[in-house]
Amino acid sequence: MTVHSKCYMQCHRCTRVWSQSRLRAGIHRMTESNNNDHLVKSDDSQHPANLIPELCKKFWTLGWVTGTGGGASIRDDDLVYLAPSGVQKELMKPEDIYVLELSKQLDPKQRIYLRSPPSLKPSQCTPLFIAAFTKRGAGCCIHTHSQWAVLVTLLLESQSNKNLFEINNIEQIKGFGKGYQKQGALGYHDTLRIPVIENTPHEEDLTESLEVAMDKYPDTYAVLVRRHGVYVWGETVHKAKTQCESLDYLFQLAVEMKKLGLPWLSDIA
Amino acid sequence: MTVHSKCYMQCHRCTRVWSQSRLRAGIHRMTESNNNDHLVKSDDSQHPANLIPELCKKFWTLGWVTGTGGGASIRDDDLVYLAPSGVQKELMKPEDIYVLELSKQLDPKQRIYLRSPPSLKPSQCTPLFIAAFTKRGAGCCIHTHSQWAVLVTLLLESQSNKNLFEINNIEQIKGFGKGYQKQGALGYHDTLRIPVIENTPHEEDLTESLEVAMDKYPDTYAVLVRRHGVYVWGETVHKAKTQCESLDYLFQLAVEMKKLGLPWLSDIA
Amino acid sequence: MTVHSKCYMQCHRCTRVWSQSRLRAGIHRMTESNNNDHLVKSDDSQHPANLIPELCKKFWTLGWVTGTGGGASIRDDDLVYLAPSGVQKELMKPEDIYVLELSKQLDPKQRIYLRSPPSLKPSQCTPLFIAAFTKRGAGCCIHTHSQWAVLVTLLLESQSNKNLFEINNIEQIKGFGKGYQKQGALGYHDTLRIPVIENTPHEEDLTESLEVAMDKYPDTYAVLVRRHGVYVWGETVHKAKTQCESLDYLFQLAVEMKKLGLPWLSDIA
Amino acid sequence: MTVHSKCYMQCHRCTRVWSQSRLRAGIHRMTESNNNDHLVKSDDSQHPANLIPELCKKFWTLGWVTGTGGGASIRDDDLVYLAPSGVQKELMKPEDIYVLELSKQLDPKQRIYLRSPPSLKPSQCTPLFIAAFTKRGAGCCIHTHSQWAVLVTLLLESQSNKNLFEINNIEQIKGFGKGYQKQGALGYHDTLRIPVIENTPHEEDLTESLEVAMDKYPDTYAVLVRRHGVYVWGETVHKAKTQCESLDYLFQLAVEMKKLGLPWLSDIA
Repeated sequence: MTVHSKCYMQCHRCTRVWSQSRLRAGIHRMTESNNNDHLVKSDDSQHPANLIPELCKKFWTLGWVTGTGGGASIRDDDLVYLAPSGVQKELMKPEDIYVLELSKQLDPKQRIYLRSPPSLKPSQCTPLFIAAFTKRGAGCCIHTHSQWAVLVTLLLESQSNKNLFEINNIEQIKGFGKGYQKQGALGYHDTLRIPVIENTPHEEDLTESLEVAMDKYPDTYAVLVRRHGVYVWGETVHKAKTQCESLDYLFQLAVEMKKLGLPWLSDIA
Repeated sequence: MTVHSKCYMQCHRCTRVWSQSRLRAGIHRMTESNNNDHLVKSDDSQHPANLIPELCKKFWTLGWVTGTGGGASIRDDDLVYLAPSGVQKELMKPEDIYVLELSKQLDPKQRIYLRSPPSLKPSQCTPLFIAAFTKRGAGCCIHTHSQWAVLVTLLLESQSNKNLFEINNIEQIKGFGKGYQKQGALGYHDTLRIPVIENTPHEEDLTESLEVAMDKYPDTYAVLVRRHGVYVWGETVHKAKTQCESLDYLFQLAVEMKKLGLPWLSDIA
Repeated sequence: MTVHSKCYMQCHRCTRVWSQSRLRAGIHRMTESNNNDHLVKSDDSQHPANLIPELCKKFWTLGWVTGTGGGASIRDDDLVYLAPSGVQKELMKPEDIYVLELSKQLDPKQRIYLRSPPSLKPSQCTPLFIAAFTKRGAGCCIHTHSQWAVLVTLLLESQSNKNLFEINNIEQIKGFGKGYQKQGALGYHDTLRIPVIENTPHEEDLTESLEVAMDKYPDTYAVLVRRHGVYVWGETVHKAKTQCESLDYLFQLAVEMKKLGLPWLSDIA
Repeated sequence: MTVHSKCYMQCHRCTRVWSQSRLRAGIHRMTESNNNDHLVKSDDSQHPANLIPELCKKFWTLGWVTGTGGGASIRDDDLVYLAPSGVQKELMKPEDIYVLELSKQLDPKQRIYLRSPPSLKPSQCTPLFIAAFTKRGAGCCIHTHSQWAVLVTLLLESQSNKNLFEINNIEQIKGFGKGYQKQGALGYHDTLRIPVIENTPHEEDLTESLEVAMDKYPDTYAVLVRRHGVYVWGETVHKAKTQCESLDYLFQLAVEMKKLGLPWLSDIA
């Protein structure tokens, strides 16, 4: 469905009918009866609208999306599928998924959704997911509130470089690609570097510093958010998910290493 | 079913038949053949009698209701649905649920149940759940024995203000509403404050100090009980459950922070 | 089936036929074609032969019966149902269950099984389970290798009374009955005391010291085994299972308290 | 299917057709239409192609094969079934399994697979699994990235003998066999010794040092890999799996003991 600016549609919140120009202004949200529900209905278990709930259920058991925190988004060509805000992640259903067209999101203040679930709110993570899709060509982006990620950012606060998590000489580092538009994976002796950005009161305000971190560390597949969690992406759902798992593994290991007095960086060649 | 004081019914414990006036005195419990079983029978998965067992099963896997400890209650208008005492929480069934009318519980010493499971005992948590319903208009109240909650109360014992858990500058704090009859959620920089009351030998004797804590902290959605656990409520099942998850996340984080020498309060603006 | 001493049956191990007197000598084990398989076949989910596999599957997820360690036994009047040795506990089936008659186990060296699974070995825990059944009238006994139990016994090694785990003023203590042939549960202020016995190379050799500990602490529902695990029993399956859960909760809490410098005993009245 | 050197088959990677001699050179991989799919299709739940996915799903929940790390292989007489590289282990299917003939793997540089999944890569663990099969007659070999294993190898780095994990006087040690071609299990007082080898950038390069460790400790059923994980094997799937569980239990216990200042070796006789 392409939305024409001449169309009149019902606003999601006020339930009144407005012109597209007013809806595009972002004050109102369309809920026309034809809400493009076909975009989230598929018998294919690998369809993004089916995959996101399945992934979120798994993430809930891992403690990544506790108390409706965190989220996930999948990009399929120009369509972006997004978990909504405030939903119990282990109970999410395909009909809870938002859909938007990536190429039409010129102004982040005026987000247009091809498909909006009738009684939900879009996630504040949306602009951060979109940054991973547009700046890195990611196919999937995951945001967790994992306690291991939060603890790593807290432990870094007292270190000389508080804005960079570094670890090397751990096999699981090989679970990460070398970086944007590069072939192959990191090696065992390579140092994995994950930048840390400061948290902000409103999650969408993280976007700018996330993009700055992406520019400074063009090959990173993740950005830690202090006292908040982590954003992890990958070219495919498979890569985003397995890189997120590997990273959480390394964060947990790093916290345990700290408890046992073991350094994160070592000098093995 | 409305119970008339002229009715004669069988006592649950002594199996003899008594007048309602004697049953209302609280010495006996009715088990008349018409036990209002229809109140706990529904094909709707969102019916309180179906939701409570489902929630308790989930809570068991989280370690919140180990060894029959803890419990949960849902209020639907004037009807209150309660998990029974002493049942393995992961095995609970809809027919194990107690039901009472909130408006008829004038004297807590004379609890009248619209529906009592034949061979179970009502939970000692009942008066505490009722306090959340009557004083805060809660729609659901959860009681956990989470070890993280217990450890937080133990760690507080040696602190200057041992009756208040405080944490700030953690994203998950945004999982809590601002408070009773207030709109919106706490912010990232806000300090979450959860009062702690001392445990008593009989759980029902906690009611008075729980109510005092509610009066002193009118906006809290939870009260910690020293060396025991936590009571968490919310306007809806969704809010009570997700606030309970967020709180348990913060308790666990707080314990891990203590192990790593990290303070619960920080001075970030 | 009552086994008569005049019967001739096939030995389980050597596959030759022997008189009952030789089989009773314990050197051989009967595997007659009529192996009383009906004793472990039931459509009732509460039948011991169905309950033991279900419990063991749950215990496996709790880390209590890792690597075939641990076990469980249920007594139904004079019949005792036992998990076998060396089976993956999460995969156990009703046909893996041993059955014996409690009243006929006069000589522990000559164990007679009413029903033996064809290709399994009886558990070395058998005499310890039987001690709980005969000396305490238990209806169920559970043996776990929980790491929390093992760590508690290790921590006790350097304490003045290394043979007694004591904890008080924790709500979960109320999950235990007052003791053998006593009514009611322990109170919040009561001190829970679990004796510790030293491990032996052969598990069956623990029987004597387990019985000594039972005599010294007649009201205990559990005995810790140093560097090994714990035996927990109860009048019913429900009580044994929930007491085992409560105890494991307290062991885990005790280990975490030790890490945080918090004492197990406190002086609250 | 026996592959004849005169056959021409399609290469897996370049999709062109080559003679067997070229395919055997290891540069190309066959993907002939008859890919021996019957080798991984069975209704028997105990068939290796069904067992490996089931085991890997279980291992994923245990945190052993996070982020596609780790793996498992089963030998059935001369056929070896292998989990592929880079697959989400909890989602693996029978059709993802590689099969090779053990007796035909003379040159490890020229690996011939009887069956290769069309779009997957063989695991770098293959030569290490094969070492367990050929040098120790193992029936199953498991490789985990368990954090407990990694932490144990990190803790050993500062010890006098950094290449050997030793623990004694823990009941779970009885979960291990005495060793290669020996009868019976280790005793409670025996010291379990697991050699540690240094990690290498390419996993297959571990093969030589793994074999050296096997020669030096002929009775070990496991080899730790520093900062990487552990390889565990056994005569059967049952033994490899339960030994791997027992070992992970001991690694976790060892890490907790270190946190609590408890020594791994003690002097109890």
